Amino acid sequence: MIIKKKENWFKMLFEWKGSVLPQLLPRLLLLFLFSFLIVYSKSFLLEYNLHINPAIFTLFGIALAIFLGFRNNVSYDRFWKGRKLWGALLNDTRSLARQSITLLNTKGDKSESQNFINLLIAFVYALKHQLRNTDSAEDLNRLLPSDFKEQLDEVHFKPIIILRELGLWVKKAKEEGKIDSMAQLAFEENLNKLSDIVGGCERIASTPIPYTYSVLLHRTVYIYCFILPFGFVETLGWITPFVIVFIAYTFVALEAIADELEEPFGVQPNDLPLDAMSLMIENTLLELNDQKTIEKKTSKEYYIT
Amino acid sequence: MIIKKKENWFKMLFEWKGSVLPQLLPRLLLLFLFSFLIVYSKSFLLEYNLHINPAIFTLFGIALAIFLGFRNNVSYDRFWKGRKLWGALLNDTRSLARQSITLLNTKGDKSESQNFINLLIAFVYALKHQLRNTDSAEDLNRLLPSDFKEQLDEVHFKPIIILRELGLWVKKAKEEGKIDSMAQLAFEENLNKLSDIVGGCERIASTPIPYTYSVLLHRTVYIYCFILPFGFVETLGWITPFVIVFIAYTFVALEAIADELEEPFGVQPNDLPLDAMSLMIENTLLELNDQKTIEKKTSKEYYIT
Amino acid sequence: MIIKKKENWFKMLFEWKGSVLPQLLPRLLLLFLFSFLIVYSKSFLLEYNLHINPAIFTLFGIALAIFLGFRNNVSYDRFWKGRKLWGALLNDTRSLARQSITLLNTKGDKSESQNFINLLIAFVYALKHQLRNTDSAEDLNRLLPSDFKEQLDEVHFKPIIILRELGLWVKKAKEEGKIDSMAQLAFEENLNKLSDIVGGCERIASTPIPYTYSVLLHRTVYIYCFILPFGFVETLGWITPFVIVFIAYTFVALEAIADELEEPFGVQPNDLPLDAMSLMIENTLLELNDQKTIEKKTSKEYYIT
Amino acid sequence: MIIKKKENWFKMLFEWKGSVLPQLLPRLLLLFLFSFLIVYSKSFLLEYNLHINPAIFTLFGIALAIFLGFRNNVSYDRFWKGRKLWGALLNDTRSLARQSITLLNTKGDKSESQNFINLLIAFVYALKHQLRNTDSAEDLNRLLPSDFKEQLDEVHFKPIIILRELGLWVKKAKEEGKIDSMAQLAFEENLNKLSDIVGGCERIASTPIPYTYSVLLHRTVYIYCFILPFGFVETLGWITPFVIVFIAYTFVALEAIADELEEPFGVQPNDLPLDAMSLMIENTLLELNDQKTIEKKTSKEYYIT
Amino acid sequence: MIIKKKENWFKMLFEWKGSVLPQLLPRLLLLFLFSFLIVYSKSFLLEYNLHINPAIFTLFGIALAIFLGFRNNVSYDRFWKGRKLWGALLNDTRSLARQSITLLNTKGDKSESQNFINLLIAFVYALKHQLRNTDSAEDLNRLLPSDFKEQLDEVHFKPIIILRELGLWVKKAKEEGKIDSMAQLAFEENLNKLSDIVGGCERIASTPIPYTYSVLLHRTVYIYCFILPFGFVETLGWITPFVIVFIAYTFVALEAIADELEEPFGVQPNDLPLDAMSLMIENTLLELNDQKTIEKKTSKEYYIT
Repeated sequence: MIIKKKENWFKMLFEWKGSVLPQLLPRLLLLFLFSFLIVYSKSFLLEYNLHINPAIFTLFGIALAIFLGFRNNVSYDRFWKGRKLWGALLNDTRSLARQSITLLNTKGDKSESQNFINLLIAFVYALKHQLRNTDSAEDLNRLLPSDFKEQLDEVHFKPIIILRELGLWVKKAKEEGKIDSMAQLAFEENLNKLSDIVGGCERIASTPIPYTYSVLLHRTVYIYCFILPFGFVETLGWITPFVIVFIAYTFVALEAIADELEEPFGVQPNDLPLDAMSLMIENTLLELNDQKTIEKKTSKEYYIT
Repeated sequence: MIIKKKENWFKMLFEWKGSVLPQLLPRLLLLFLFSFLIVYSKSFLLEYNLHINPAIFTLFGIALAIFLGFRNNVSYDRFWKGRKLWGALLNDTRSLARQSITLLNTKGDKSESQNFINLLIAFVYALKHQLRNTDSAEDLNRLLPSDFKEQLDEVHFKPIIILRELGLWVKKAKEEGKIDSMAQLAFEENLNKLSDIVGGCERIASTPIPYTYSVLLHRTVYIYCFILPFGFVETLGWITPFVIVFIAYTFVALEAIADELEEPFGVQPNDLPLDAMSLMIENTLLELNDQKTIEKKTSKEYYIT
Repeated sequence: MIIKKKENWFKMLFEWKGSVLPQLLPRLLLLFLFSFLIVYSKSFLLEYNLHINPAIFTLFGIALAIFLGFRNNVSYDRFWKGRKLWGALLNDTRSLARQSITLLNTKGDKSESQNFINLLIAFVYALKHQLRNTDSAEDLNRLLPSDFKEQLDEVHFKPIIILRELGLWVKKAKEEGKIDSMAQLAFEENLNKLSDIVGGCERIASTPIPYTYSVLLHRTVYIYCFILPFGFVETLGWITPFVIVFIAYTFVALEAIADELEEPFGVQPNDLPLDAMSLMIENTLLELNDQKTIEKKTSKEYYIT
Repeated sequence: MIIKKKENWFKMLFEWKGSVLPQLLPRLLLLFLFSFLIVYSKSFLLEYNLHINPAIFTLFGIALAIFLGFRNNVSYDRFWKGRKLWGALLNDTRSLARQSITLLNTKGDKSESQNFINLLIAFVYALKHQLRNTDSAEDLNRLLPSDFKEQLDEVHFKPIIILRELGLWVKKAKEEGKIDSMAQLAFEENLNKLSDIVGGCERIASTPIPYTYSVLLHRTVYIYCFILPFGFVETLGWITPFVIVFIAYTFVALEAIADELEEPFGVQPNDLPLDAMSLMIENTLLELNDQKTIEKKTSKEYYIT
Repeated sequence: MIIKKKENWFKMLFEWKGSVLPQLLPRLLLLFLFSFLIVYSKSFLLEYNLHINPAIFTLFGIALAIFLGFRNNVSYDRFWKGRKLWGALLNDTRSLARQSITLLNTKGDKSESQNFINLLIAFVYALKHQLRNTDSAEDLNRLLPSDFKEQLDEVHFKPIIILRELGLWVKKAKEEGKIDSMAQLAFEENLNKLSDIVGGCERIASTPIPYTYSVLLHRTVYIYCFILPFGFVETLGWITPFVIVFIAYTFVALEAIADELEEPFGVQPNDLPLDAMSLMIENTLLELNDQKTIEKKTSKEYYIT
C-alpha cells in the first residue's frame, strides 16, 4: 500500500532482511577486486589491444536480460503454482470438513466428523513432510489412531494412503446409511481434488527446470560479469569497479532469486511458509468443528498466511 | 472508446486524477536538484574523469526495463486475479440465490430464500472486512440473526463459518423434504466454489511478491536514476535535469503503480472498489428475490462496477 | 491465408479501412510541422546546445516499446476474453436449447421448448443492451410475453432476472414430471455457466485497465515523440520530419489500437460485432428448434461470425 | 530429438520444404535491387545529405521486434488453440464412443453403438467442412441415413444439428430403458463439451486478429526494410544489399509465418492437417467398436497425427 | 536451495553433465577457426571494405534474442505441459485405484480391485510405449490376461482399448450390483480424464512447433554467428575468436536446448524420465492395494520423480 511505502522508499534502498545480498557479497567483492586489477593494468591492456568494444556488451547484455527474464518468469511461476496448490489444499480441506458436518445425518454427534477432520489435518502434515523430506512421526502420532499410524510407517506415499483412509471413512458412512449416494459423490469429487493437489506438489518438487538451462544461464551471467571490465576500462577509468559491481549485482541477484524461488517447498527465506500454512489449515478446520484452535510460536504470522 | 478519447488525447497529457505523480513529486524534485548540481560541477567531473560512458546506460536501462516489465506483469496479474475472484463471487452468489428460489418446493413462501440470501450477503461483507482487516460488526448486525452473530464474534475465519451455516441451511431444507439429493448436490457445488473464492482472496492478500524482488528492483531503479546524470552531463548540458527527470518519471512511476496494484484489496485509488462491489452484489441479490434495492452514497458508481 | 495475402502484400501497405490512421492524422501533422520547425531553427538550437544525444533515445525508446508491449498484451487479452465469453454464450445457449429438446418428455409438442428458446434469445439481447448501455425494449417486446416484459422494465440487471425465469421454467417442467432430478441438474449446470458469462462480461465492461497506466503511457509516448526531433536534427537534416513521423506513427498507432481494444463491447470498427453475433445466436437456436431463421441487413456477415 | 538434429544442423540451413521463402523471394529480390540502387547512388545521397543515422534504426528495429514478437505470440496461440480443440474433439468422441459401448444394456448387440459412432464421425467431418467452407456431401452420404442427410442439407450449422441428433439418440435409449438417468447425465456432459468445441473452432475461424494490427505491422515491417539501406549505405558499402536482405528476410519471414498460423484451419503447408486428423478420429472410433479401420492416401501420416 | 548452491556457484561454471555443450563443440570449433581466419585476413578485409558496422549487429542480435525467447517459451511450455499430463496421469490413476477400493461392495475381496489396478498399470505402460514408439509386449504380458493381450496386439491405439476395458469392468461391476449408478458416474468422470490425457500426450507428440519456425530461427542464428566476426574484427583484434565463440555459445546452446525440450517424450538427457515415472505410478498403485512394490535399476531415482 502506497502510504506505507511513501515513508519507506528511501529506507527500502538499504533493506537487508530476506535479501540475497549477504550470500552474494563474496562473489561481488571478488568481482570488485578483479575490476580493480583490470583498471590498474589498463596501460598494459591497451598496449596489447586487450580491451573490448562496448557495443558487443550492449548487444549481449540485452540478450542476456531477455533470457534471464525467461528464467525469472518460469521460476516465479513455479513459486506461485506451489502457492496456489497450498491454497487449493486449504479450500478443499475446508470444503470436505464442511461436508462432513452438513451432509452427515448424525444428529449432533460430532465424533465422526472429528475423526474425519483429524485425518484431513494428518493429510496436510504428511504432505508437508513428504515435500520437505522430513520426519512426519511427531505430527502423525498426535493426530492418528496408533494402529493406522503403524500401517503408515511402512509406506512411501503417506498422503495417498491417508487419502484412501478418507475414502474408506466415506464408504463406511454410506454403508451405515449416514450419507446417500449423492453425498458420497460430493465427497468423492473433493477427494479427487486432494489427489490432484498431492500430484501437483510432487510434480513441482521432483521436476526442476531442466538443469541445462540453469547451468547455461549461470555460466553466461558470471562470465559476462567478469569480462565486463575489459569493455569499460578505457572509458570509465577508476569508477569502473563501482559501475561493474552495480550492474553485476542486478544480474547475479536476479539469477540467485530465480534459483531460490524455483524450489518453493524449501526452508529458505523466500520459500513458502509451509509450517505456518499447515498450522493455519489445522486451526481453520478445528474452528469449523467448534474445537479449540492451537497457538504456537508461529501464531503471530499465521493470520496473514 | 475512441470518439471520447479523440477529444481528450491532448488533455489526457495533463491528467492528474488517480495518478501516482503527486506522491512521486518530492523524489523527482530531489533528482532534478541533484542533476542540476551535477551539471553545475561539470568541469570538475570532467577534470577528474567522473563521467560515465552512455553505452553502459543503454545496456543497463534496457535490462532494467525488461525486469520492470516482469514486475509489472506479475502485479497486474494479481490485480486482475483479485478482480476475477470478486467477479466469481458475484456469479456464484447469484447462482446460489437463483437456486434457492427455483430449486425449493415452498409454494410461494419466500422467507426461506430470504434467510439464505441474507446469509449470502453477510458472507460477501464478511469477506470484504477480513481482506481489509476492518470491523464487520455493523454490516453483520444488519443481516444476521443475533444468536448467530454472537457465535461469529468469537471466530477468526468468519466467511468460512457463514459458509458452514449456508451448508446447514441446505441440510435442513433436505431433511424437511424441500429439496432432493440432486438439488443438494447442485447447492454443494456452488458452496465449494465460494470456498475456493475465499481461499483465492486470502492467497493474494497473504502472499505478496517475494520481498527480495521488490527490494532489488526498487533499489536498482533509484540508483540507476541517480547515476544517470553522470552519463549524460557531458553531452546534454543544461537540459540534462529535464531529460533525466522525464526518463526517471517513467521508470519510477511504473514501479510505483506496480507496487500499488500488487495489493488489490487495499483502499488506494487504483485498488479494487470493494465497497461498491459489495453493495452491487447485495442489490442484485435483493432484486433476484424481488426485494427493494439499497441506494447509498456510492450508488452513482455501482452500476458500472 | 497465404495465397490471398500474396496478391495483397503491396496493396496492404496502403490499406485504409478499419485503420486508426484517420483519427491520428491531425496529431501526426502537428508533429510533422513541429519537426519542421525544429529543423528550420537548427543553427539556433546547436548554438545554444539544445540538441540531445541520440543514445538516450535508443535507451528510452526500447524501454517504452517494452511497456507498450505490456499494454498491448493486456488490451488484446481483454478483447479476446470478451470474444471467448460471447463464444461461450453461443455454446451454452446451444447446449441449453438442445437439452430443452432432448431431455423433455413432451412427445412432439414443441411449444415448451419454443418458450424456453425465446427466453434464451431474449437473454442474449438483454446482455448485449446492458453491455452497450442501449435500450433493450424493442428486442425484448418481440420475444417475451408482455407481463414478464413489464416486470423486466423495473429491474437493473435484466439478464439475471431472465436467468431466474429460465430456472423457473425448469422448476415447472420438473413439477409437471416432464424432466427428472438428473435432467434438472444438467440444466442447472448450464444455467450456472450463463451466470458466469454475465459476470465475466460485466467484469470486462466495468473494470478498465487502471487509469494510471493509460495516462502514464499516453503521456510518455507523446512527450517522447515530440522531443525526438531534438535528438536527430543534427544528423538527419531535412529528412527529420519524415523519419520522426514514421516512428511516431508506429508508437502512437499501437497506443491507439490498444486503447480501442481495451473496451471490446463498444461500437468502434475494431470492437466485437455484438449485433451480428446476437443475430447469429438467434438463428442457430431457431434452426435447432426447426424454426425459420431471420435474415437482416447484417446477414451477409453473420455466417463468418 | 537431438541425435536426429545433430546430423542435420548443417543441412537444415538449406532446408526448403514448408518454408515461406519461395513466396517471399520476389519481394526480397526487389529489396536487393533497391539496396543496390541506393549503393550505386551513394555519392549523390551523401551530397544531398539523404542518408540516415544508424542509431535510429537500432531504436526502431528493436521496438519493431518487440511488436512482432507480440504478433507472433498471438498467432501461435491461435494455432495451438485450434490444435487443442481438435485434440479435445478426439478425446471427447473417444469418450462418447466408449460410453455408448460400456453404459448401454444391449447384451452384445452392437448396432445401436454403431449408429451412434457413425453420427460422431459425421459430426467430425461436418465440422471440418464447415471450418474450411467445403462441401460435406460426400462424407455425410457415406455415414448418415438418407432421410437425416436430406434434413441436414437445408441447415447452416450442420454440426449443431448432428449434435441434437446425438442427444435424441440418448433420449431414445433412455426411453427404451437401455440407460438410466445417471448415464444420460454422463452422455450429456460430453455432448456439452462437443458444443464447446464447435463454438471454439468457429471463434478462431471467424474472429481474426484485429485487421488494424496486421496492417500496422505489415506496413511498418516493409517500410522499415526499404529505408534500412539509407542508414547503412555510408558505412557498409557494397555489401549493403546482402546484409539488408538477410535482416529483412528474418523480419519479413516472421511476419509471413505469423500470418499463416493466424488461420490454423486453412489448407496451407503450416496449417493443421484436418484431413489426416479426421481420418485418425474415424479410425480410432471404428477400432473402439471392433470395426475395420480405413486406409487412405493419407494413411502414412495419420499415426503421427 | 540456496545453501547447496552457495558451495556450487563456482563449480557450476564448469558443469558438464546433461549439458548440450558436447554436441555443440564441433560447431563452435568451426566458428572459432573461421573467426581466426577472418582476423588473419583483417588487412585484406579492411582494404576491400568487407567489414560491417557493429551497430547493425546490435540491432539484429537483440531482435534475434526476442525471437529466440519466443521459441524458448514455446518449447519449455511443451515440456511442462507434457510433465503436467504425466502428473495428471499419476493423480487420476491413484483416484481410480482408490475408487476401486472404496466404492466397491466386495467385503474384503481384493481380487476385483487388483484386476482393475493391473489394467490401470498396463494403461500407463501402453501409453509410454505408444509415445516412444517402442514395443509394449513385455510390460503388457506381465500385467494382462493372455486373451486380452492378444486382442491388443491387433490394434493401433492400445491405451484407448485398455480404457474401454476399464469401462467394461465398471459396467460389469454395476450389473453385478457391486456399485450403484452414482459410483459408476464417479468412475466415468475419471475415465474421461484418462481419455483427455491420452489425447493431450498424442497432441504434443504429433504436432511439433511449425517446422518453418524452427528452420527460420536455426538458419538465422547460425548465419548471424558466422557473420559476427566481420563486425568486430576491426575493433577487437586477436581476441575476436574468443568473444565470438562465447556469444555464439549462448545463442546456439539456447536454440539446441529449445530443440531438445520441444519433444518431451524422447529419451534424451533433458527429456521426461518416462521409465522412472511409469515405475513410480506402478508402485504407488500397488501400495494402495497393499501389494509389494517393485524395485528396479531406476529405483534410486523414482522417489524424487
